Amino acid sequence: MAELEPLRFITLEGGEGVGKSTLQRALAERLNSHGFDVITTREPGGTPLAEAVRELALHPPENDSWSAMSEALLMNAARSDHLEKLIRPALRVGKWVICDRFADSTRVYQSVKGGVSTDILSSMEATVLGETRPGLTLVLDAPLETTAGRRSARNGPSDAFEQRDHAFHNAVRQGFVAIARAEPERCHLIDAACSETEVFVAAWSQIVAKYKLGELVR
Amino acid sequence: MAELEPLRFITLEGGEGVGKSTLQRALAERLNSHGFDVITTREPGGTPLAEAVRELALHPPENDSWSAMSEALLMNAARSDHLEKLIRPALRVGKWVICDRFADSTRVYQSVKGGVSTDILSSMEATVLGETRPGLTLVLDAPLETTAGRRSARNGPSDAFEQRDHAFHNAVRQGFVAIARAEPERCHLIDAACSETEVFVAAWSQIVAKYKLGELVR
Repeated sequence: MAELEPLRFITLEGGEGVGKSTLQRALAERLNSHGFDVITTREPGGTPLAEAVRELALHPPENDSWSAMSEALLMNAARSDHLEKLIRPALRVGKWVICDRFADSTRVYQSVKGGVSTDILSSMEATVLGETRPGLTLVLDAPLETTAGRRSARNGPSDAFEQRDHAFHNAVRQGFVAIARAEPERCHLIDAACSETEVFVAAWSQIVAKYKLGELVR
Repeated sequence: MAELEPLRFITLEGGEGVGKSTLQRALAERLNSHGFDVITTREPGGTPLAEAVRELALHPPENDSWSAMSEALLMNAARSDHLEKLIRPALRVGKWVICDRFADSTRVYQSVKGGVSTDILSSMEATVLGETRPGLTLVLDAPLETTAGRRSARNGPSDAFEQRDHAFHNAVRQGFVAIARAEPERCHLIDAACSETEVFVAAWSQIVAKYKLGELVR
């Protein structure tokens, strides 16, 4: 039996401010320059309905808040729409898909927030993904001090917030590292404390190796 | 070990137009008249966040539509919020809860629409409900001819719709009957083609029997 080729479905994971969207743009440009069609997308979101769920999930009405279980179900509802209407159709016609956050983010954030067991999260993930698992997941990892600047630039001045949530961001970081170590076939850990160029080179070399692009892109 | 008492959590199920909300009001009034505190609620919905999910589920933006999988996940996200913020707290302080549609509606409608296996639906239901299963489910059943008038009064003139969807409404009806037959401990099938009074009497007698109210309400 021939070895199954990995899906041209690449996910970028990691905590806030590690440089996922910068890397996404650079990888898409490089793939484009070699003549490949690339879709860049994000989660939660990526389709009109999934973006509507994102909005509801991130900004619950009436200053109310979602339980971990409701949030996990909402994220998976959005993911199911995204897979069905954007990701799978693109992969079927031979396009590459690079997604800024995907199922690993749900695993990590919902686990860190607590309230839903890992077994339940895994079972939901398996149900929603089916055969559409990323061929390659690049996990960007950097010390919190390195990413703090980017996080606060994005979220506004929030020293108190940053300090209070140091434990949270740290748990998120450890969660992503744990996934990368547990699934070395799919995931590759990248030191995101390096320069943008170094991060790109590390990521691109993983893509070349995983998808055997050596001859195509020489 | 003492027999577990059934939760004072009653769900009303059945196709559109069988008279669930009329029965809900009558049962709540009767329970009230005997001094019980009763919460009446509905699904999808019942809490502000669950109502927001209901709106998104029933009216997807941009004339798009949900896949069966996304819809099942959304319904369960709404249900999880409803259980956590309204149903469980009410039951904990000794109130009765009568809910117009609950998990059986998801089972039936998602199965009829197809696209999600019964196993997956059951597993999601078990995850979200946990121990909070209805103590009594009254399944209202009536021939489609009986309910057609109420359905079209509610949905506007729609002969074409009605005709096209006869098979759908019939499958829904059969789905509810199948659940009632499969779970006779929890469910009781009520002939909703009878008068409102007869339906009420049948429903009330089930409540009196299930919750051993005989002496209290004599």
